Amino acid sequence: MELQSLQDLYLHELKDIYSAEKQLLKALPKMAKAAANPKLRAGFEKHLEETRVQVERLDQIFEKLGKTPRGTKCKGMEGLIAEGEELIEEGGEAEVLDAGLISAAQRVEHYEIAAYGCAKTYARILGEKDAEKLLDKSLQEEGATDKKLTQLAESSINLEAAEAR
Amino acid sequence: MELQSLQDLYLHELKDIYSAEKQLLKALPKMAKAAANPKLRAGFEKHLEETRVQVERLDQIFEKLGKTPRGTKCKGMEGLIAEGEELIEEGGEAEVLDAGLISAAQRVEHYEIAAYGCAKTYARILGEKDAEKLLDKSLQEEGATDKKLTQLAESSINLEAAEAR
Repeated sequence: MELQSLQDLYLHELKDIYSAEKQLLKALPKMAKAAANPKLRAGFEKHLEETRVQVERLDQIFEKLGKTPRGTKCKGMEGLIAEGEELIEEGGEAEVLDAGLISAAQRVEHYEIAAYGCAKTYARILGEKDAEKLLDKSLQEEGATDKKLTQLAESSINLEAAEAR
Repeated sequence: MELQSLQDLYLHELKDIYSAEKQLLKALPKMAKAAANPKLRAGFEKHLEETRVQVERLDQIFEKLGKTPRGTKCKGMEGLIAEGEELIEEGGEAEVLDAGLISAAQRVEHYEIAAYGCAKTYARILGEKDAEKLLDKSLQEEGATDKKLTQLAESSINLEAAEAR
């Protein structure tokens, strides 16, 4: 698809995020299962629920645009998830792996912060007010998740990892 | 490599960032070449110089640790760069592609913000004060680059993209 207009780029971006979220829906249960710390596990499970709602928001946006969300595989998210899976496969002390899972998850959150930030800006310029609001809700959630992960790491998990050996 | 201690995770993280920066050294000249807007091109060229210094900082950290930076391929950055290359290959109007390049570059910056943020925190907990300072310098630069990209997008490039058709 040639990118002839900002509308084309906006659609390109939305499809990319849709694919990213769909991939994340499959990865988050594995991350939750791999987490030893109950708060971290609960955090991944909560974000799984949020991600389902975020996909629904994207479905609404695509429906209003009269476009299909399919046809793109987000290679960025594919790489980020592969990195998280590698970490889980490496194995080791539970507390250290938990700290590593947070690091992998924060890369994912930051991907989404960048992606929703751009998509929201395009929606604003294109006058897509409903879409702008929906994208902003998801953007705020991703930011909040990233902050919670930092708090969890700094208040307990990183310190437990430091005492693992 | 099993992750038995926070020191192991710290080394894992440093190797990941090293690989990410090395991949970026090859990708940034292609992004600069693909950019039509002179300010965007200059921005990519400036960030290439910064990236070279960031690699040198990592070299210093590895040297002090007595470890090699090699042996890891950062799959996250691999995916992000592949995504940027796909965009360039799609082609289209120069102003729209420039807006897309900014979006791809902000994903890269956010990856690095997450990665340096975690590595810096581990360095602090492990008492690696010199490394903490070096990692923080790179973290600040990545944050500043992300902000500059947002300014460039919002002050001109996104608006030019909206008028492309």
